Amino acid sequence: MRAPPLFASSLRASVASVGEEALLRSIRRWLGRASPRPPAGIGDDCAVLIPARGRELLTIDPVVHGVHFDGRVPARAVGAKLFRRNLSDIAAMGGRPRAAVVALALDCRVSLAWLAEFYRGLARESRRHGVPVVGGDVARLDGSLVATLAMTGECPGRALTRAGSRPGDWLYVTGSLGRSLATGHHHAFEPRLAEGAWLARRGEVRAMMDVSDGLAKDLGAMTPRGASPAIYGAMLPRRGEASVREALCDGEDYELLFSVAAGAGRASLEKAWRRAFPRTRLTCIGRFARAGAVPPDALNLGDFRGYEHLR
Amino acid sequence: MRAPPLFASSLRASVASVGEEALLRSIRRWLGRASPRPPAGIGDDCAVLIPARGRELLTIDPVVHGVHFDGRVPARAVGAKLFRRNLSDIAAMGGRPRAAVVALALDCRVSLAWLAEFYRGLARESRRHGVPVVGGDVARLDGSLVATLAMTGECPGRALTRAGSRPGDWLYVTGSLGRSLATGHHHAFEPRLAEGAWLARRGEVRAMMDVSDGLAKDLGAMTPRGASPAIYGAMLPRRGEASVREALCDGEDYELLFSVAAGAGRASLEKAWRRAFPRTRLTCIGRFARAGAVPPDALNLGDFRGYEHLR
Repeated sequence: MRAPPLFASSLRASVASVGEEALLRSIRRWLGRASPRPPAGIGDDCAVLIPARGRELLTIDPVVHGVHFDGRVPARAVGAKLFRRNLSDIAAMGGRPRAAVVALALDCRVSLAWLAEFYRGLARESRRHGVPVVGGDVARLDGSLVATLAMTGECPGRALTRAGSRPGDWLYVTGSLGRSLATGHHHAFEPRLAEGAWLARRGEVRAMMDVSDGLAKDLGAMTPRGASPAIYGAMLPRRGEASVREALCDGEDYELLFSVAAGAGRASLEKAWRRAFPRTRLTCIGRFARAGAVPPDALNLGDFRGYEHLR
Repeated sequence: MRAPPLFASSLRASVASVGEEALLRSIRRWLGRASPRPPAGIGDDCAVLIPARGRELLTIDPVVHGVHFDGRVPARAVGAKLFRRNLSDIAAMGGRPRAAVVALALDCRVSLAWLAEFYRGLARESRRHGVPVVGGDVARLDGSLVATLAMTGECPGRALTRAGSRPGDWLYVTGSLGRSLATGHHHAFEPRLAEGAWLARRGEVRAMMDVSDGLAKDLGAMTPRGASPAIYGAMLPRRGEASVREALCDGEDYELLFSVAAGAGRASLEKAWRRAFPRTRLTCIGRFARAGAVPPDALNLGDFRGYEHLR
């Protein structure tokens, strides 16, 4: 089956042919079991939810036509990507996702077939992770499509933030890095929810984030005052044919980056990891050195730039 | 002072001139005290919040250039409108707003001065209502601007939904209806938060929603099986010069519509209302008749259509 293009070739096949109310009915049908009935689901002014346990998490991320996807990405994968981008943010705090709301802004010439596939992709991720789509909005936007998803989650225990690393801490990354666009990883990736929750329970893990704008750029957000990352090209887990530069700069890796207290037993962490996640690669890529004391053989991260969203 | 236009007249005055990191720093500066530091605010993968008390509410609404605003609406009012649209959804459940996240998708030619005013408008509403902006995202979008806000709230007591009305119930509306665009009400309105929370505590109030797509259309969402709304043109509270048709169809009223049990003392409700909200108009516009038993002098709502989002 050929994947439907974003814009319909005829009025009859477009959103404009059905009008708002019929479209909302279709969206509910496409979401199916992913969308509960109101008041817990779509259909009232707000969704009504049972509150989070522990700490509540809240995040928001869009997919924009021409930026996060183009005609080469099937509509179903675009819906899945939107859901997964937000799941990855919840994973990066060590949290559990709870519920999602989706606002769609789209040109009236968007194809109904494309939209059906998009919502089916969204619904599949929603069901797989047990995270219902509880509300939404549809608005007109000339010439493009922007779908924005907000997700709430919870941390029954500790929420792992980007802050808290110290000079000397080891740096780890899950999976592999680089060439996300070329390999389709940017929409097919698996959010590291189980891994993130596991790491939040390990006391020796100090700070965590997801790598989405490229390691070289993202590392800056986790680097504490008085420290500099000392990481090594040879140690970077690279995706397929990715070069060191691609592993550092490409973006959209959606892997976890975390720091581990210098005094902790690295071997016991790595052994426990292999038992818990035998299929998820874990790599020590270096450590936080004291500022001004980065070893000369470490990468000079100033030479590498991450993904720039506004160029 | 002339209000800045959305698109800058020179590259130097546009978003493209600063790049993402400087823009994010500016956004934090424009938000000021409206945006707490992470982990409770902008700067981590998710915001970390204290959970809701009672029931949690979650909603999402955008403002889209060319649809929800145009060059005649000052940027500051656009930011305020985005915040207020979501507050109105929380108000419609009788809830208290808690926190907001904002995703911005914009063309690189958007003017920095416009954006500064937009965020200042958002920040002012945030501070006024004590609802911090705790997270966000910025992405590129060619040719337009879409800002999407998701808001979480709480209902310590009952959440008033659209369901629960019965034939015979009285229908009430706050404020006045119609000509929202012509009068600037569509961005200057005051969300009915105090009124909504008060109504949720009154046992005789059965169901509630906000009127945003025009009363004629929105009434359908609150009408129970076996009933039809019997409302009267002469009783509609009209904004300024609004005609009955404009009061029924214009949309963007952001007023509360609610039903009251037939057996309840209407006079005592109205008296208590005047004491609590002496400056907010409250009007009984009719009642839910049994289906097929709508009085002949009531409006035939089939003759009126509300706002259609996708034409």
